[in-house]
Amino acid sequence: MVEAVLAPVDRVREADEPHSHVVRFGSDKPLRLDAGVDLAPFQVAYQTYGTLNGDRTNAILICHALTGDQHVANVHPVTAKPGWWETMVGPGRPIDTERYFVICPNVIGACMGSSGPASTNPKTGAPWGLDFPVITIRDMVRAQAMLLDHLGIESLFSVAGGSMGGMQVLQWTASYPERVFSALPIAASTRHSAQNIAFHEVGRQAIMADPEWCKGRYFTEQKDPRKGLAVARMGAHITYLSDAALHRKFGRRFQDRDNPTFSFDADFQVESYLRHQGISFVERFDANSYLYLTRAMDYFDLAGDYDGVLANAWKGSPTRFCVISFTSDWLFPTSESRAIVHALNAGGARVSFAEIVTDKGHDAFLLDEPELFAIVRGFLEGAARARGLPAQRR
Amino acid sequence: MVEAVLAPVDRVREADEPHSHVVRFGSDKPLRLDAGVDLAPFQVAYQTYGTLNGDRTNAILICHALTGDQHVANVHPVTAKPGWWETMVGPGRPIDTERYFVICPNVIGACMGSSGPASTNPKTGAPWGLDFPVITIRDMVRAQAMLLDHLGIESLFSVAGGSMGGMQVLQWTASYPERVFSALPIAASTRHSAQNIAFHEVGRQAIMADPEWCKGRYFTEQKDPRKGLAVARMGAHITYLSDAALHRKFGRRFQDRDNPTFSFDADFQVESYLRHQGISFVERFDANSYLYLTRAMDYFDLAGDYDGVLANAWKGSPTRFCVISFTSDWLFPTSESRAIVHALNAGGARVSFAEIVTDKGHDAFLLDEPELFAIVRGFLEGAARARGLPAQRR
Repeated sequence: MVEAVLAPVDRVREADEPHSHVVRFGSDKPLRLDAGVDLAPFQVAYQTYGTLNGDRTNAILICHALTGDQHVANVHPVTAKPGWWETMVGPGRPIDTERYFVICPNVIGACMGSSGPASTNPKTGAPWGLDFPVITIRDMVRAQAMLLDHLGIESLFSVAGGSMGGMQVLQWTASYPERVFSALPIAASTRHSAQNIAFHEVGRQAIMADPEWCKGRYFTEQKDPRKGLAVARMGAHITYLSDAALHRKFGRRFQDRDNPTFSFDADFQVESYLRHQGISFVERFDANSYLYLTRAMDYFDLAGDYDGVLANAWKGSPTRFCVISFTSDWLFPTSESRAIVHALNAGGARVSFAEIVTDKGHDAFLLDEPELFAIVRGFLEGAARARGLPAQRR
Repeated sequence: MVEAVLAPVDRVREADEPHSHVVRFGSDKPLRLDAGVDLAPFQVAYQTYGTLNGDRTNAILICHALTGDQHVANVHPVTAKPGWWETMVGPGRPIDTERYFVICPNVIGACMGSSGPASTNPKTGAPWGLDFPVITIRDMVRAQAMLLDHLGIESLFSVAGGSMGGMQVLQWTASYPERVFSALPIAASTRHSAQNIAFHEVGRQAIMADPEWCKGRYFTEQKDPRKGLAVARMGAHITYLSDAALHRKFGRRFQDRDNPTFSFDADFQVESYLRHQGISFVERFDANSYLYLTRAMDYFDLAGDYDGVLANAWKGSPTRFCVISFTSDWLFPTSESRAIVHALNAGGARVSFAEIVTDKGHDAFLLDEPELFAIVRGFLEGAARARGLPAQRR
């Protein structure tokens, strides 16, 4: 793992030579993609925290969200900011790295060291760009299973993640039920709604409208579609927050002034905040990756793989589930989590469900939510007893 | 009014020489703007339908929304499509042009013939662009009041509009209570929320990110920021519909195929629909106007003009109000209309309120909503009796 603050590094180099562990799969071990092609060679970048026990029974896989990466609980090599889930993962945290061995891979299609459109295409020596095959949530999970094989981990104690991470959790429990002892899908859904697809499509169009996108060949053309990517991020960011949270944080307050400027400056605090979100995002993220990962989310439809019957995805599942949603999440509303719980019940799976009351919206899974921490801690504690892991030191 | 289908015309020419009535105010009659400057000379383009009675007591002013214009109930000169509120306004319609004299002006800042950033700046002979002063909802209403003075209409029988049109209705009743006998604010609010400002800001950033925007000088530079404006429209369009309506209309259905293409084509029907919305919008709308009108909406805060107490805006108001909202409108939710009703009650105004159950979202005010038609018809009928207008012929 990355132990100390690194000087912020170039995100372009991270795509091939990340500041992480990396496993490289050769041509003999292709990744079979849903698109019907094999990806080979390819690589998976990942971080680990804690120690694998002798029985190899204490591993927890963390699946990251659309704009996340493997840097869960260490300083980020590009931004020099803290890990994205440091409140959840670490020594003494709900996902306690003194007790569990935590693995977080960068997803396939992303840009922090797992193969994706920003990686070098071995056939050309140039970045893949749009020649990278379109991937799915199931492809991400397949690559993660290959990583676990490589690490010699047959069965995960748990797999956890929010948003797109939750989609991967759900896919794991459907694709590899025997490898998942417990599962924590948070603020997730088994399919993207028309509204969600619509928001993603606007983001993609914003990127593709930027002339510096160059049909995805911006690396070779020495361009960077920063403006398009920033607009995409700004629009998406609104959907991560609730109306109430935006009102509480910003309301109609002006930025550094008392009266309107009667101009197109960022008069309102909320404008200033959004512009900052857009600008800081482009420092660490690849525009093509944004296209690929939003597409993977749009394509996700778990029931579709089981004749349209979601319960079939989990028939006789041995996994213990804890499904968590947030009252003010309008992107992945509680109704989606309820549908998961109903299908799990119909499939006879073991499931608990918590809807957490908060005004923080979809982003609540990343924020300081004491109830979320308590539920995750308690659920893992119960699962650890059932798994026969040693009791927690007090 | 425009009686017949015109061949679609150039939107650029419409800004100065519209296919409408136009009143031109000279340097002796400036429009005093909230920004602290005078706009002069300036012009207001408008359409009328029906006949003004001898007492001049049957005039209804229609205020259009962000992307609307004066072509309420006639074929549009640029798009050759039907008027935007033909279901509401016309012979025998709820706003019955056989009974009422209907006036619809293009708002100041727009691009269909009232002065705005696409109009020719008389000082330079070139389009105003960003040299046009930033305008407010109150400025729009001031210009409309000058139009009514010009038409010799002292008192309106009613003023009606949805969304940004509803904001103008509310401003009318606050600025000129004695000139408004009845008022119909539909799907409106007295202030833009942080979330609404945020969505608008993303749209503005999408336009400004387009290199063809040229800091607003695209006319002079022979450019056209079509891509940026289309992205802005796509994003905004999502907010006009409800999640349920998008699900009902499109769900996750593919466009012209059974399986995903594993590409960035418009696989899903909802993507195809949104792209069409973006492309068709840019044919008829000016990118700078989009900046100005969204800004005017963001600045709107009626209570702010009355020491933060909304009820003061309507103290002793003689106007009869009918406030209408829609259950699935998340852009201007019912809570906003309820706040209007509470303030009107506190100010002692005469008000009725209807929340219409529909899954059509904010756009419901433009769509075929029988309950909306019945309420508007009934409210106007009651107001007509109170005004002493002759009973409707049966």
